[in-house]
Amino acid sequence: MSIIMVGKKIAEHLREENAKEIDSLLKRGIKPTLAAVRVGERSDAISYENSTIKWLDKLNIGCETFHYDENIDKKTFLEELEKINKMPNIHGILLFRPMPPELEDLEVEYAISPVKDVDGMNPLNLGKVCVQDESGHAPCTAEAVMEILKYHNIDLNGKKAVVLGRSMVIGKPVSILLMNANATVTVCHSRTKDLPAVCREADIIVAAIGKAGFVTADFVKDGAVVIDVGINVVEGGRGVTGDVAYDEVAPKCSYITPVPGGVGSVTNAVLAKHIVRAARVLNR
Amino acid sequence: MSIIMVGKKIAEHLREENAKEIDSLLKRGIKPTLAAVRVGERSDAISYENSTIKWLDKLNIGCETFHYDENIDKKTFLEELEKINKMPNIHGILLFRPMPPELEDLEVEYAISPVKDVDGMNPLNLGKVCVQDESGHAPCTAEAVMEILKYHNIDLNGKKAVVLGRSMVIGKPVSILLMNANATVTVCHSRTKDLPAVCREADIIVAAIGKAGFVTADFVKDGAVVIDVGINVVEGGRGVTGDVAYDEVAPKCSYITPVPGGVGSVTNAVLAKHIVRAARVLNR
Repeated sequence: MSIIMVGKKIAEHLREENAKEIDSLLKRGIKPTLAAVRVGERSDAISYENSTIKWLDKLNIGCETFHYDENIDKKTFLEELEKINKMPNIHGILLFRPMPPELEDLEVEYAISPVKDVDGMNPLNLGKVCVQDESGHAPCTAEAVMEILKYHNIDLNGKKAVVLGRSMVIGKPVSILLMNANATVTVCHSRTKDLPAVCREADIIVAAIGKAGFVTADFVKDGAVVIDVGINVVEGGRGVTGDVAYDEVAPKCSYITPVPGGVGSVTNAVLAKHIVRAARVLNR
Repeated sequence: MSIIMVGKKIAEHLREENAKEIDSLLKRGIKPTLAAVRVGERSDAISYENSTIKWLDKLNIGCETFHYDENIDKKTFLEELEKINKMPNIHGILLFRPMPPELEDLEVEYAISPVKDVDGMNPLNLGKVCVQDESGHAPCTAEAVMEILKYHNIDLNGKKAVVLGRSMVIGKPVSILLMNANATVTVCHSRTKDLPAVCREADIIVAAIGKAGFVTADFVKDGAVVIDVGINVVEGGRGVTGDVAYDEVAPKCSYITPVPGGVGSVTNAVLAKHIVRAARVLNR
């Protein structure tokens, strides 16, 4: 029987850990605060922003909103980011995406100060993650994978981990994090030959390719740990499903994350942890 | 019979490619120039500096030397680096290592402007390498591995590459470069279980662990490509030897690099390429 790694429990645990650090910062007169940056008036971004403000408030983390017209030019936007980088009362910066095409750009990613880049959007932060420098952050989803493994005391030392996907948001950072945790990591992608055979070697599989139900039972050896990072909208638009064909894979696993309710549920708790860490680093 | 990948030929090829770009920069009145930074008076650093000046001069690349007392404190040294970062006539910065212990520090590595960091010492440059941004550089040795594979038209697409070592200087950057080139990459290290078996799966092995003769015939499948990054001083101090037990491994390979005369011979040509690229990027 496989153990289902429920994200909510892990998020709760992270929030408890975080609460102590928030308290000690508040005692020093520092309220960890996120800058929520939104360009334009997309309804999904607005509703994401509203929910972010609400859950941060429950944790005693501040949130200041910065709204820009959707026609803002890149130069002005970069200047605005630089202003936020310099605000002493702001510790983290989150851009709601997608942004207008002109702003979906490497130059914008580089412009976020690494220490305030709490969702690890700036490629420079991958270098900081490599050297385990806490003044930088991995993308929250990548780190959520590690928190899930840690919460369940899954031994990574010398274990074979296979990561499906090599993106800057998940594949590359989670590979680095697994490497730093002493796993032997293989990174697979669209060009990998005989993917199921490569995956069958894995003690731990992290699926992040964005294809619903792609990882089937023949990818998974008995007793493997499977972490599903995929969030694919179900045809017809109701609900989401993962990259793993859960019903056939789960019986073979020792541990597995559900979708929804797995990695996604831990991501916000990691974001909060990053804001608090940045507040500490910026005030030491 | 295996093909021996002689570094000299590859370096020569790179220098020819580079010469065209140097000419076009010179025509614009820009002489690509390296800042050679030495702290203290170690005889090996001095002789490395002298040879660097000489071979750069042959390529029409300038070299300015910056010498500091070995007792320089970190704060002053960081200020000096910042001055060099800002000099418009300097395009690359190379620190001769080892430096005094106080300066062998992450803060010093971060202080080198990424675009001038032509030996990829700044961890931030690993992020730039990930997104293939040419305003940053991989460590020269890691890129030398890729140039060797490219020169010999070795197909990486979907091939299994195993990298032995996860250092910031070789293991991590070469893994990223191989990933970007569409190989399926496994990174092994001291904690990896049954290393020979993992290596036997590889179409391409990159050995960078710093243990003389560590990779023996039983690590290598017939027809594999083996790149030996190791430079280990032979007992008694005369000459160097690689991480690969050459005599027993070579007969099994399709391609193999010798040590000395392999990767090491390509490194300087890559350094020159980086200085020239930085000169172009800084003047566009």
